[in-house]
Amino acid sequence: MIKKASFSWKPRLTKMLLCANKAASESSQGSAAFKKKLLLEVALLIEKKAGWLIAANKKDVKKAERNGLSSAMIDRLALDKKRIKAMADGVRTVANLADPIGKVQAKWSRPNGLRLQKVTVPLGVILMIYESRPNVTVECASLCLKSSNVAILRGGREAMASNRAFVAIFKEVLRKHALSPFCVNLVTITDYEVLDFLLQQEGKIHLVIPRGGEKLIRRVVEKSSIPVVKHYQGICHVYVDKKADLGKALSITLNAKLQRPGVCNAMETLLVHRSIAGKFLPQVGKALKQADCEIRGDIYTCDYIPWAKRAKAGDYGYEFLEKILAVRVVKDLEEAIRHIETFGSHHTDAIVTEDKKAAEIFKTKVDSSSVMVNASTRFSDGFEYGFGAEIGISTDKIHARGPMGLEGLTSYKYIVEGNGHIRI
Amino acid sequence: MIKKASFSWKPRLTKMLLCANKAASESSQGSAAFKKKLLLEVALLIEKKAGWLIAANKKDVKKAERNGLSSAMIDRLALDKKRIKAMADGVRTVANLADPIGKVQAKWSRPNGLRLQKVTVPLGVILMIYESRPNVTVECASLCLKSSNVAILRGGREAMASNRAFVAIFKEVLRKHALSPFCVNLVTITDYEVLDFLLQQEGKIHLVIPRGGEKLIRRVVEKSSIPVVKHYQGICHVYVDKKADLGKALSITLNAKLQRPGVCNAMETLLVHRSIAGKFLPQVGKALKQADCEIRGDIYTCDYIPWAKRAKAGDYGYEFLEKILAVRVVKDLEEAIRHIETFGSHHTDAIVTEDKKAAEIFKTKVDSSSVMVNASTRFSDGFEYGFGAEIGISTDKIHARGPMGLEGLTSYKYIVEGNGHIRI
Repeated sequence: MIKKASFSWKPRLTKMLLCANKAASESSQGSAAFKKKLLLEVALLIEKKAGWLIAANKKDVKKAERNGLSSAMIDRLALDKKRIKAMADGVRTVANLADPIGKVQAKWSRPNGLRLQKVTVPLGVILMIYESRPNVTVECASLCLKSSNVAILRGGREAMASNRAFVAIFKEVLRKHALSPFCVNLVTITDYEVLDFLLQQEGKIHLVIPRGGEKLIRRVVEKSSIPVVKHYQGICHVYVDKKADLGKALSITLNAKLQRPGVCNAMETLLVHRSIAGKFLPQVGKALKQADCEIRGDIYTCDYIPWAKRAKAGDYGYEFLEKILAVRVVKDLEEAIRHIETFGSHHTDAIVTEDKKAAEIFKTKVDSSSVMVNASTRFSDGFEYGFGAEIGISTDKIHARGPMGLEGLTSYKYIVEGNGHIRI
Repeated sequence: MIKKASFSWKPRLTKMLLCANKAASESSQGSAAFKKKLLLEVALLIEKKAGWLIAANKKDVKKAERNGLSSAMIDRLALDKKRIKAMADGVRTVANLADPIGKVQAKWSRPNGLRLQKVTVPLGVILMIYESRPNVTVECASLCLKSSNVAILRGGREAMASNRAFVAIFKEVLRKHALSPFCVNLVTITDYEVLDFLLQQEGKIHLVIPRGGEKLIRRVVEKSSIPVVKHYQGICHVYVDKKADLGKALSITLNAKLQRPGVCNAMETLLVHRSIAGKFLPQVGKALKQADCEIRGDIYTCDYIPWAKRAKAGDYGYEFLEKILAVRVVKDLEEAIRHIETFGSHHTDAIVTEDKKAAEIFKTKVDSSSVMVNASTRFSDGFEYGFGAEIGISTDKIHARGPMGLEGLTSYKYIVEGNGHIRI
């Protein structure tokens, strides 16, 4: 790896952080109406400059082709008029969400007459770390502006020209309204050395949200002295109970595994109660075979689905992210819960059952950020939950858990009003 | 420092963590009524065994005397019947609080018919790090039990015999009800080596709450790979506005500084609007002189209070924790806010004013965990806020901010119920 002028980036980044923090303290005062207006203008400008954005994106695409990136990766990178329009509409959606700042979460009085309020406030400066897709740049910048936070965007080098262009649009609108252009910042050097420096800026950066592969995220957590909200993996389970409606079970199984196998809320392991395995597994086997999905099962599964491969030790708790499904027959609900506890990643796990008591036990005992009953794990998503946005999914229990919308980008303060009250 | 059998503690602690996590997953199922009953029994047993507890405490006190600890420290350590009774009553208060677990924070449906709930859950295993006072042991163990969390208590070595005795009482009650004694754990080796090992147990310990001096807390944050909720310092300000009621201003000033100067929510710096300084400062000076409180002021302050010392550079933003007050005359509200922003620790800051607009600006612009209007900073406290408990105060913006009661020991999960819903 070539070191790019490492002598010069530190003062530049330090200045950027200083200005970002100043911008954060100013932007925390922006009114809801003003923020909405700003974002609607960004959306308009994205549409207006679509040709220019596509030209910038072409540079990234050409470079990617030169560097021999896979066609799937190039497809994720490439923009056309339709995709640009969708991005602008995404910004409009965020613009029209309810303002998350200044919301009174609670209000009460004390016997001594003190009046208290718990009011939402922005977090400050948020560092987003992600990989190639330029739409993440636009999404994150919009969500941060909407929540009065300042964004530091560290996207992948593959999308640098596109990211520069989109960030320039945000900055243009900010400048037009005499706001600090440091409300939205792009890190233009993607070296790990620079990232590690940023991750040590406790107090100047207030939250880190990495999105991407597990390796990247583990690295971020290891190097960061700033709180990190993240999920490493989505090892999602569907458990088909003995009292499951097998029609629902089949369609949920196929949907959870196949609708988009490469995402974190896709199912990786299917658990089937032994008393219905004989009826259910042959149906599942047939449907998955038609869909070209490999099965890796335990000895019972292989009995019912003769073409299935035998699962190896590492197959349970593995995130395949492709058309491969681990299957296990369990003797009861308790064993299913234990399996999820042992092999899961506390992301999203589902039970299919018509038995209310079994559902109740599953909901209580399974300690995952989302627990589903008779629904596909694929619903675990900020948009599907109605948050109108998603900045990430957290499997942590601290700060935010599960799909994170705008609320995950806020903190709160207590406002206490008295009339000369002193403590006795 | 003598290394105490460092070859043997690692496997012991590893086993303790394993059992603690097992206990956490079991105890998350305890009903509200059962937890209440359990804590009431603990309170009763503390009272019943008061003699035995005092005898254990005597050992600590004698050792402290031998080691030449200050009489103030010995006073904080020593227990008598009255203090034991107060501790038991504290446990009863926690027992009678509303159960923080299983609370439905939000409930909604989606257009497709999916029903969603956001329900509070325990965090898991919580490591409390604190210094000499044995009452913290009882408080933290009670709060963790009440919130279905498992406590790992790492108190100071000065209180070891007392802490062992109190933890034994909790374990006795747990065992009586066939619960895991690993719901409450005491770390009996206080070496930093052991602490550092614990701070690296990400995934096995879910939150770290250090309480104590800034040095200890900085060390914990530096070494921990687990999220830490903390405050380093309480640099609290009172700003007396030009439209302040000077009667209120005087009593709030005296209360905030003198009622208990050694705690984090005591005032450290007084800011006075210049247009009332001539009237207000001589009154304050007189009252503080009577109370033996030193003043370190800027040139204007020293004009009005001739006996005041001139403040040096480090006096603003310094946590005196004793009868010393820094005073500065400011030219307006904006300068006061800038001073607080520059020198404060985002803990608690107050304005004294009868001007609603000034109060509004102060409440919005001052980014502290608690912002007070016409009330003493000393109210920044979980009990005073009506939480019925306080596990710590956070100046972080992540997870919990300000005084933390039981709610700060919870996370949540999403429960999603469908009827065979699949994602299209």
